[in-house]
Amino acid sequence: MALELNLQNTELTGDEIAKLAEMRRVCARRILLSTSLAASGHPGGSLSTLDMLLVTYGCIKHDPKDSQWQGRDRVLMSIGHVSPGVYSVLAENGYFTEEDFLTGFRRAGSGFPGHVERIVPGVEWDTGNLGQGLSTAVGMAQAFKMKGSDQKVICYMGDGEQQKGQIAEAMRYANKYNLGNLIVIVDRNHIQICGTTEEVMDIDVTGLFEVSGWNVIKLDDGHDTNKFFQTFRKAYLGEVAKTDKPTMIEARTVMAKGISFMENLSKYHGSPLNQEQLAEAFKELGVDNDFDKWAELRKAPVATNTKMKNVVRYPDIVGGEPITYDSKTDCRSAYGNALHSLAKDNNVGGAIKIAGISCDLEGSVKMGDFHKHSPTAYFEAGIQEHHAASMGAAISREEIACFFSTFGVFAVSEVYNQNRISDINETNFKVVATHCGLDVGEDGPTHQGIDYIGLMRNYFRFNVYIPADPNQTDRVIRTATVDSGNVFVGMGRSKMAPILAEDGTPFFGNDYRFTPGKGDWVRSGKAGTIITYGAVTPNVMEAWQGLKDEGHDVGVLVMASIAPVDRDAIVEAAQKGPVLTVEDHHVDTGLGAIVATVIADNGLAATFKRLGVTRYGASGKPADLYASQDLDSAGIVKTFKEML
Amino acid sequence: MALELNLQNTELTGDEIAKLAEMRRVCARRILLSTSLAASGHPGGSLSTLDMLLVTYGCIKHDPKDSQWQGRDRVLMSIGHVSPGVYSVLAENGYFTEEDFLTGFRRAGSGFPGHVERIVPGVEWDTGNLGQGLSTAVGMAQAFKMKGSDQKVICYMGDGEQQKGQIAEAMRYANKYNLGNLIVIVDRNHIQICGTTEEVMDIDVTGLFEVSGWNVIKLDDGHDTNKFFQTFRKAYLGEVAKTDKPTMIEARTVMAKGISFMENLSKYHGSPLNQEQLAEAFKELGVDNDFDKWAELRKAPVATNTKMKNVVRYPDIVGGEPITYDSKTDCRSAYGNALHSLAKDNNVGGAIKIAGISCDLEGSVKMGDFHKHSPTAYFEAGIQEHHAASMGAAISREEIACFFSTFGVFAVSEVYNQNRISDINETNFKVVATHCGLDVGEDGPTHQGIDYIGLMRNYFRFNVYIPADPNQTDRVIRTATVDSGNVFVGMGRSKMAPILAEDGTPFFGNDYRFTPGKGDWVRSGKAGTIITYGAVTPNVMEAWQGLKDEGHDVGVLVMASIAPVDRDAIVEAAQKGPVLTVEDHHVDTGLGAIVATVIADNGLAATFKRLGVTRYGASGKPADLYASQDLDSAGIVKTFKEML
Repeated sequence: MALELNLQNTELTGDEIAKLAEMRRVCARRILLSTSLAASGHPGGSLSTLDMLLVTYGCIKHDPKDSQWQGRDRVLMSIGHVSPGVYSVLAENGYFTEEDFLTGFRRAGSGFPGHVERIVPGVEWDTGNLGQGLSTAVGMAQAFKMKGSDQKVICYMGDGEQQKGQIAEAMRYANKYNLGNLIVIVDRNHIQICGTTEEVMDIDVTGLFEVSGWNVIKLDDGHDTNKFFQTFRKAYLGEVAKTDKPTMIEARTVMAKGISFMENLSKYHGSPLNQEQLAEAFKELGVDNDFDKWAELRKAPVATNTKMKNVVRYPDIVGGEPITYDSKTDCRSAYGNALHSLAKDNNVGGAIKIAGISCDLEGSVKMGDFHKHSPTAYFEAGIQEHHAASMGAAISREEIACFFSTFGVFAVSEVYNQNRISDINETNFKVVATHCGLDVGEDGPTHQGIDYIGLMRNYFRFNVYIPADPNQTDRVIRTATVDSGNVFVGMGRSKMAPILAEDGTPFFGNDYRFTPGKGDWVRSGKAGTIITYGAVTPNVMEAWQGLKDEGHDVGVLVMASIAPVDRDAIVEAAQKGPVLTVEDHHVDTGLGAIVATVIADNGLAATFKRLGVTRYGASGKPADLYASQDLDSAGIVKTFKEML
Repeated sequence: MALELNLQNTELTGDEIAKLAEMRRVCARRILLSTSLAASGHPGGSLSTLDMLLVTYGCIKHDPKDSQWQGRDRVLMSIGHVSPGVYSVLAENGYFTEEDFLTGFRRAGSGFPGHVERIVPGVEWDTGNLGQGLSTAVGMAQAFKMKGSDQKVICYMGDGEQQKGQIAEAMRYANKYNLGNLIVIVDRNHIQICGTTEEVMDIDVTGLFEVSGWNVIKLDDGHDTNKFFQTFRKAYLGEVAKTDKPTMIEARTVMAKGISFMENLSKYHGSPLNQEQLAEAFKELGVDNDFDKWAELRKAPVATNTKMKNVVRYPDIVGGEPITYDSKTDCRSAYGNALHSLAKDNNVGGAIKIAGISCDLEGSVKMGDFHKHSPTAYFEAGIQEHHAASMGAAISREEIACFFSTFGVFAVSEVYNQNRISDINETNFKVVATHCGLDVGEDGPTHQGIDYIGLMRNYFRFNVYIPADPNQTDRVIRTATVDSGNVFVGMGRSKMAPILAEDGTPFFGNDYRFTPGKGDWVRSGKAGTIITYGAVTPNVMEAWQGLKDEGHDVGVLVMASIAPVDRDAIVEAAQKGPVLTVEDHHVDTGLGAIVATVIADNGLAATFKRLGVTRYGASGKPADLYASQDLDSAGIVKTFKEML
């Protein structure tokens, strides 16, 4: 029984207030029942946000019959653990039935997980790791603004959560880019798991939003639906002091509101009631105790959710004309040129299909031409990588291929967990790290990311490409843009000569097509194979020449596609002769480990060695660093000959 | 020619001011010369902080002849890129010669890297990734406070850097724990790589420190050595409004101060002068141009740094009496009990050798008893994992084994890059993740860390242990505490029965000793081997029984030590018969990949299969999640039989 509230009215009618009170009673019952049935979950915060959530869904544009309707406002639950409250309210609004929810909650294979996920109709984002949600909401608001839509984004946050530093980054960004279409509601119940927010880590929530330029409204009772309506309505209609700035409502609430013996107790953050307590609570609510009925229903096999989950929308992209380089070029310039070329072909006629983000490194990551071509699609996020990564993925779900570029240690290592949540959310995020490996050189070990494969392979939905030269970079970037889904592209920093075919022409020239999951035999050879990728490929080519000069007919297999990987080519190599992997990457977690897995999975007895980074690199020229770890041509030749 | 400044005086003498001006001239020359010689590096910020650094080293307690002197104050350079400035000032103070620095700077194998590292005498920490340094300084200050020492920590930060969210976390923590022994100097030159700080990402630096409860002092000219002395002296002597709170000095400076054509240009953040520009700059400084002499000297092979680097000090720890469990217990309770027992044996007579940190999860991670026993050694950091990880590692270098506990997704995935910097710094940090894998259950995929091995293996100096039951957990925790260095220990969430020997007694009982790098043959068998660890070990034992009942004599090798790993045992298994790995971890990046690497490295043709997590887990009971991915005993039996 959904309730539509008229924003033309400045306050609620008595009928509306009564209706909301009745909806609260129904939803409070569901919150308590669902968590007790599952014997786990978060009733306290669910009861804390409940009144505000009910009013919010009464005010916003949404369509329970079509949760995918593109015109809808977005509600982003940064506090993903209040799922019982969210599902209760969505059920009340007709997105699904109470039975779906109560029989499925927190059961493996059902559509109603412990933290909110898109598999539930009406849920916009799989959340749960605190501190990331505001960045996600900022990304959605940025996408709407970019597209000229007046849709709003409402983000629900906790007060304990405010301790996470990423939130400070998101606040600043939303201020800089004037996201007046963003409303944050902080559920200020002063309770977190280990006590009051003051005991655990005191924080001036409104002070921090104010310092960051936001409109801030304090509401003394977030359970007073009429007061909340009056406040929310002003924020929604832009009746605020700074109309071009986002608005934060800090609403004083009570943890576990409405059940006398639960209120203000931190234990009910994450603990359900037992059956006696539930009976008591139901008495207070004045509802029948039908726990046993539902417990019985939950003994049936779990019903698979047949509803359509909230899908990410991918843009149609034109790949354009490849650019071929025949002189020394850095891969990052080839990336910048490809991105610029793609923008010229796709960001046309006011449409934005490709966006770009960097963090105080526009020049280093070669996004300057893209920025000039598509100024409204380029975002300088400052030195705020956590925010930038979360935001970029959220932008990418609105029919935009969103590129995020910085050094490998920041694009991969620093934001590993942000990218993990984007992986779970099946976005269209393109992470391009322009400075990977020892090739970073003089900046030393803190700046040399040697774990980009080792980390990215822990995701299930990121393709991972590491091109071998500027030409392959151009092709890889075009493929990564045209294809939907998350992609990581890594490259070194230095200029390099294009890899040549034996006839002296660019191997990755105009006729070359990059195919995910396919390796490239740059040289064929019967005496064994060197498998490589990325910045050390020129060293491998030099080693190939050295071995050839000594009469060894060696093949070179370039593996730009790391995930998916060309398992057939690896098997072919291992059956042919000795296999040596060479990479500017931690020796135990990169391509060498992947090749080892393919060999072992296939039960092959191969002569096999791995060359890679075996200790943190020093600060110095890449050539010296490579030589010190046997990754120069001499080291490669020597190691290969040991296998013969 | 070091200069000692007397803090009893309220201002500098004319002689001192003149001496500092001359020191500046000498150091400015070194900054420009070193970066031009290396053709890379950061002259701008080095010239910006130079005057303040010179005064700071005149004021603090330190001993250039013994950079390891325990009574010294600590200077933490969060802006690690201003290494030319730091090395120049340290040379001026007699830590090493100018020649050492100028011939070695940014050359592979030398002792003078591009970002400051402990290999340079006088440098306290390898830094370079912005935003982490304040947390490190907070850790040092917390360690001094814990030990009752009046030593001070001085942290130099950039203003662009203030954008990083982790800094907000560190500010709050330093306020909560009253770290009045901490002084932060923000080099406020308003320039970052992509423009002014206002253009890139505007931020009210002093406003944020004020909101977080700090003493804030604004200084209008950080190049006026007398003014800076007067300001710094007050902060150092505690002559501030809130004596128990940390103090931040925001000093207005000029990027590349002192060279007219470089001043205020963001390009000089990270670009050196070419030779013509250098000649011009040297004219302005009034110094001889000896570039060619030094360039010639740099052609000689790099001199290896023979100085002692700044070592981490490890405590002597007593391992105590093991605790053996014979009924169902969760590993995290065994961890909590072991930690409590270790505290009772080691945190005695006022000494603190073991410290603990958690992030709003004290109860879940079972640190309550430790907290009660050692209240001054337990720190509740709030929901601020980035800060907690950086801080904990810094605490650990002061003869303390510092434990940091939270869920796997937060202890590993969220703070991967913070732990990477701790790995580089060779600390004594003990990261214990109490909720790993699908065993986390109903909280769903955002909370199920299935990458803890895949990530931790990218470090070079973290041992990685995943115990199989509460008894092995007890032994592993004791070993991890007694042994020096970084250790990760991961475990599941659920209660489990102890693993039994064939005679029905606890396998990891009183006689068991855990040895890093050694696997445990829990069952011997000739028909093949199942290699496993952690929360799925009971499922493997059940499968072993099932296979035995069907007449298959299978061995079970429990690999609690993942890094280092027992390569010999793996080879033995692979030579014996089929090998199946079973793990509650991403199937491609965990133990299965390690075993594959050992098999392939040794050229063995083994019958080999890997069972693990092949897709994100659902929200539900661990048993259901295991069954859905063939990680229950039925799935293990079925898979093993496919190999026979």
